[in-house]
Amino acid sequence: MTASPFTIDIQLRWGDMDSLAHVNNVQFARLLEEARVRAWHVWFSDSGAEDSPTLPILVARQEIEFVAPLYYGVEPVRIEMWVPRIGTKSFDYGYRIATHDGQIAALAETTCTVIDPSSGRPAAIPEGSRAILEDYAGDEVPFRRRR
Amino acid sequence: MTASPFTIDIQLRWGDMDSLAHVNNVQFARLLEEARVRAWHVWFSDSGAEDSPTLPILVARQEIEFVAPLYYGVEPVRIEMWVPRIGTKSFDYGYRIATHDGQIAALAETTCTVIDPSSGRPAAIPEGSRAILEDYAGDEVPFRRRR
Amino acid sequence: MTASPFTIDIQLRWGDMDSLAHVNNVQFARLLEEARVRAWHVWFSDSGAEDSPTLPILVARQEIEFVAPLYYGVEPVRIEMWVPRIGTKSFDYGYRIATHDGQIAALAETTCTVIDPSSGRPAAIPEGSRAILEDYAGDEVPFRRRR
Amino acid sequence: MTASPFTIDIQLRWGDMDSLAHVNNVQFARLLEEARVRAWHVWFSDSGAEDSPTLPILVARQEIEFVAPLYYGVEPVRIEMWVPRIGTKSFDYGYRIATHDGQIAALAETTCTVIDPSSGRPAAIPEGSRAILEDYAGDEVPFRRRR
Repeated sequence: MTASPFTIDIQLRWGDMDSLAHVNNVQFARLLEEARVRAWHVWFSDSGAEDSPTLPILVARQEIEFVAPLYYGVEPVRIEMWVPRIGTKSFDYGYRIATHDGQIAALAETTCTVIDPSSGRPAAIPEGSRAILEDYAGDEVPFRRRR
Repeated sequence: MTASPFTIDIQLRWGDMDSLAHVNNVQFARLLEEARVRAWHVWFSDSGAEDSPTLPILVARQEIEFVAPLYYGVEPVRIEMWVPRIGTKSFDYGYRIATHDGQIAALAETTCTVIDPSSGRPAAIPEGSRAILEDYAGDEVPFRRRR
Repeated sequence: MTASPFTIDIQLRWGDMDSLAHVNNVQFARLLEEARVRAWHVWFSDSGAEDSPTLPILVARQEIEFVAPLYYGVEPVRIEMWVPRIGTKSFDYGYRIATHDGQIAALAETTCTVIDPSSGRPAAIPEGSRAILEDYAGDEVPFRRRR
Repeated sequence: MTASPFTIDIQLRWGDMDSLAHVNNVQFARLLEEARVRAWHVWFSDSGAEDSPTLPILVARQEIEFVAPLYYGVEPVRIEMWVPRIGTKSFDYGYRIATHDGQIAALAETTCTVIDPSSGRPAAIPEGSRAILEDYAGDEVPFRRRR
């Protein structure tokens, strides 16, 4: 992780469970998506930047390691997020999903590619966005099972 | 891939799209889950095995590389599946998701761990299941962006 | 119902089940949405109309009566659809959702309001669309539990 | 409504939006489900009852009237809930879904049937559960478009 990752709490939904009564693996990706959207909203606001908080990105790659079953409850999960890599046209988010009492349920990494909205082609990360991402720079995601 | 991967057609749903009017990245994981369930159903039936087709597994890891945007349409997507790795207590599924006219939308890999239902602990892949998996053995998933 | 309702087959997904191992009530609404999209696609094509098949509508009301539990299987569900009411600016879809062997799982009705895309306000049903809807006119949905 | 309905705040998710950039009508049913689960959790705890908070029910009917489009935001929606009807073996929940600044987005009603878990057949509402429901008794849902 990093010294002080950004943390965000996301409510679970009963419907996130599958017929095995676990939070379904697909819904972990839904939680990560929600964390990205809400983190960016906070990060952008905190940056004092004045232009639009919308950075047009595509999810280029995502990897999730499921560490322990996650069960539905009324308490939110806590997602820690940081930025393990900032490239020219893409960057990675790292995440740790934990229960409200601190048990790690999953590690994950998402590679996001910045898109030029007019051409739909990859584009350089704008300087303002790069500065925001650098505030959250951190270590590689400590996957144990990566092939 | 492999010489002759298993292919399965899955209907898209209009609701798989997100507000960017693409099939949402989370729903790719839903399509992979459906492919696994349906593949196993076919693979088990084709094997002539008589016992239950339920192999108790947990998804331990999943990686998806998004190659091109996928748009909703009434034609199903075609998912090619194979088995790039068979270990002692776990194995990997490889996938290629393509549009009905053959454009690749994503590559993916899922690591599944076999579970002993009585203990909830990882267990050896049963011999009957191993034989089924071996029928679909194939190459590593040709990810281009793996870190 | 009606003499000859329109029928459409929709694949279930394993993930449609909730932790009670039934197809979740929320996912019935997802199946209805998919039936509407696919029905309109077919109805419009069959009509010989040349302009866009997109009728801009909002779902104004929906009522679902759950008749019997629906279980996941690899066979699709069959949805029968018809049009019990055509008003000036809105119309109703009626549906019967059945298992592939004919057991009724649900009855439903959706009120759709046609929208003028430029103003966002309700608008008269265009004549071409009205003619399509009239081809599928049918009886009221035979709800048993309506209050 | 009722003099003082129970209120519960539910986080929206970016993925609740559909390709029209509204919270999708299907996801309203997901929000209602979550409100039911969380309300029952609170209601049961507040009742001082000591036995299990699980009342085995099936959703028998649901009606939603969509009053105004709902847009995603980081603020939760507020759902007001009450109990417009308590019968022998079934009861109704009424709901009002509003944005965090008080704009009504939908009205809804769910008929729940209590189930005997051993037989799967409808059963009388247990006295403890009936007492809880009576604490939240309220008026009929003021649908404007009911047919």
